[in-house]
Amino acid sequence: MQMPPTASSSFTCPLPLSSPSFVTSSTPPSVCCLAKFTTTYNCKRLLLPFSSRLKFHTPSNQPTLMIRATVSIEKETPETQRPNTFLRESEGGDVRARFEKMIRDAQDSVCEAIEAVDEAGKFKEDVWSRPGGGGGISRVLQDGAVWEKAGVNVSVVYGVMPPEAYRAAKAASADHKPGPIPFFAAGISSVLHPKNPFSPTLHFNYRYFETDAPKDVPGAPRQWWFGGGTDLTPAYIFEEDVKHFHSHRGERRGLGGIFFDDLNDYDQDMLLSFATECANSVVPAYIPIIEKRKDMPFTDHHKAWQQLRRGRYVEFNLVYDRGTTFGLKTGGRIESILVSLPLTARWEYDHKPEQGSEEWKLLDACVNPKEWI
Amino acid sequence: MQMPPTASSSFTCPLPLSSPSFVTSSTPPSVCCLAKFTTTYNCKRLLLPFSSRLKFHTPSNQPTLMIRATVSIEKETPETQRPNTFLRESEGGDVRARFEKMIRDAQDSVCEAIEAVDEAGKFKEDVWSRPGGGGGISRVLQDGAVWEKAGVNVSVVYGVMPPEAYRAAKAASADHKPGPIPFFAAGISSVLHPKNPFSPTLHFNYRYFETDAPKDVPGAPRQWWFGGGTDLTPAYIFEEDVKHFHSHRGERRGLGGIFFDDLNDYDQDMLLSFATECANSVVPAYIPIIEKRKDMPFTDHHKAWQQLRRGRYVEFNLVYDRGTTFGLKTGGRIESILVSLPLTARWEYDHKPEQGSEEWKLLDACVNPKEWI
Repeated sequence: MQMPPTASSSFTCPLPLSSPSFVTSSTPPSVCCLAKFTTTYNCKRLLLPFSSRLKFHTPSNQPTLMIRATVSIEKETPETQRPNTFLRESEGGDVRARFEKMIRDAQDSVCEAIEAVDEAGKFKEDVWSRPGGGGGISRVLQDGAVWEKAGVNVSVVYGVMPPEAYRAAKAASADHKPGPIPFFAAGISSVLHPKNPFSPTLHFNYRYFETDAPKDVPGAPRQWWFGGGTDLTPAYIFEEDVKHFHSHRGERRGLGGIFFDDLNDYDQDMLLSFATECANSVVPAYIPIIEKRKDMPFTDHHKAWQQLRRGRYVEFNLVYDRGTTFGLKTGGRIESILVSLPLTARWEYDHKPEQGSEEWKLLDACVNPKEWI
Repeated sequence: MQMPPTASSSFTCPLPLSSPSFVTSSTPPSVCCLAKFTTTYNCKRLLLPFSSRLKFHTPSNQPTLMIRATVSIEKETPETQRPNTFLRESEGGDVRARFEKMIRDAQDSVCEAIEAVDEAGKFKEDVWSRPGGGGGISRVLQDGAVWEKAGVNVSVVYGVMPPEAYRAAKAASADHKPGPIPFFAAGISSVLHPKNPFSPTLHFNYRYFETDAPKDVPGAPRQWWFGGGTDLTPAYIFEEDVKHFHSHRGERRGLGGIFFDDLNDYDQDMLLSFATECANSVVPAYIPIIEKRKDMPFTDHHKAWQQLRRGRYVEFNLVYDRGTTFGLKTGGRIESILVSLPLTARWEYDHKPEQGSEEWKLLDACVNPKEWI
């Protein structure tokens, strides 16, 4: 982790905000908008049809809500060294290779920035690969001085998705449904859980996805798309932090930060640049907030509330997060997928914070999304 | 909670063991068998296609693995008193009414037995109903002397299941799929998490299910079935406890206890008696184990392992448990559904117990199911 920070502190969005695939808080309330808010703040009631993390769905307005269980990916094997690429041999030079390089660079810079702040914690790295191609690098910092658990993973996956997950197949006749669809997915995914209850949890992921054209359904196309997002999950609201988190991007956004998916209506170079800028914005958006909050004094009461919010985070991650459920159900590397869980959490039956309290204000912001800037 | 314990300490199974719907550990390894073992011991690798708790599926060999999100149930309202019945008015006297009485009696006797052991803990009761019929009683004991969290819920639900969940509909032509199917479900569901790491967690649930005949698919039938199970999830194995848990039933069973579903091939009286005996066996199967283990001295090391197993329990409950996911996705009462979560849990990245240790022995028993008697 010797690289200097390279992340840009300014952010310009290369996409028109009216792009239907690009969800912002200024979008009128909709399932998309709710998805962002509710995942960010883990509001249990609102999230039923959506979650934001690693939505593995096809480019359409109708994401695949559920993936039937299919274990289609080979067992991973540990590696002692990071390979130059996890791609299959013939694939150098294209978008796949450039995206892989981008996410591996982002992993380096985010981990380095975290280690620079958390003097007691060091990332443990696991490299793994699959015999037929693909693999990943999982990095976890656990029980550090500042972070309770910080995971930053990259992965490259050659898998097979059930036909239900392939949108184009649905146009085919009932008599001529395709079999499982081969897919390629590369992504960076991270959840950072700080110790101090006034320091917010951060999640981000950026991914690139391709499906093969199904051989048995004439006319059904090969598809590709970009997706990703960055969102903040505080246990307590500091309005200045939320403003900082969003304002460095130079535009108004939901408290959740940004979220997009199904981006394939621009050329791949532009979208790759967009994803790169998003990934490079993580450090300047998040680290200053941590610097400000990590040493704030707190009481057992604050810590207990954070533990309850951690419990809600677990609930959302395991129940609604399509990335998590897709990964588990297609045979992904379980320990890497579940790095997103906090180190500890708590569930009390029917807990309700006192009206008007700081804890209540957080819940209120979950249910009634705000413009923060 | 004044009722004396009425549960019988002997158990005779009124069903032939060859019944395909009745899963035991002497069944050759199969998905059914794995389901029971893996849920009981929370073995993450094995459970992909199955979980045991409250499987809301139709009588067939092909359970509905996934339910698409549909919020079809009215919002519940709190009640100040327990009504005599949660059934709609016209429904007295039939199997629905007898089943409701059985589960409410079982709730009383289990809660009373728990309070008798846990001198510091008292159940908090919430009664709720829905305007169009149905409701439930949730009882939770939290942070007691013996139990960290103990939930015993009964519910009566009039809901609507998505057509994908209705097996008979699948035989209909692609052009003539039914709309959502009204269903009735009544059940008792309980998870008891003790504090002492040598005391096992218990889960049980027993339920009765009916679907209406879909009006728009001629010939598709009305269906009914019974389901349920009782299973033990220890953090440490005491072979004598496991034997006790199973042997009081007078026959060999998987470490997980019993599990059945789709029972509709006997008359309803017999199946109601069977479910009643199962429910009445919970107290004599479980309480003696708790009495023996609740005051055993333990170290921080033991407690930390229990917390990691709690984390695994949460993972299985939220990711794989069809009862939980069905309940959440059809608009069930969230706080009642999530009573099954422990008070606290922990997730460490890639934790592996030392080979040959007591912790390792538990994992080994998860992966390699044993005959315990």
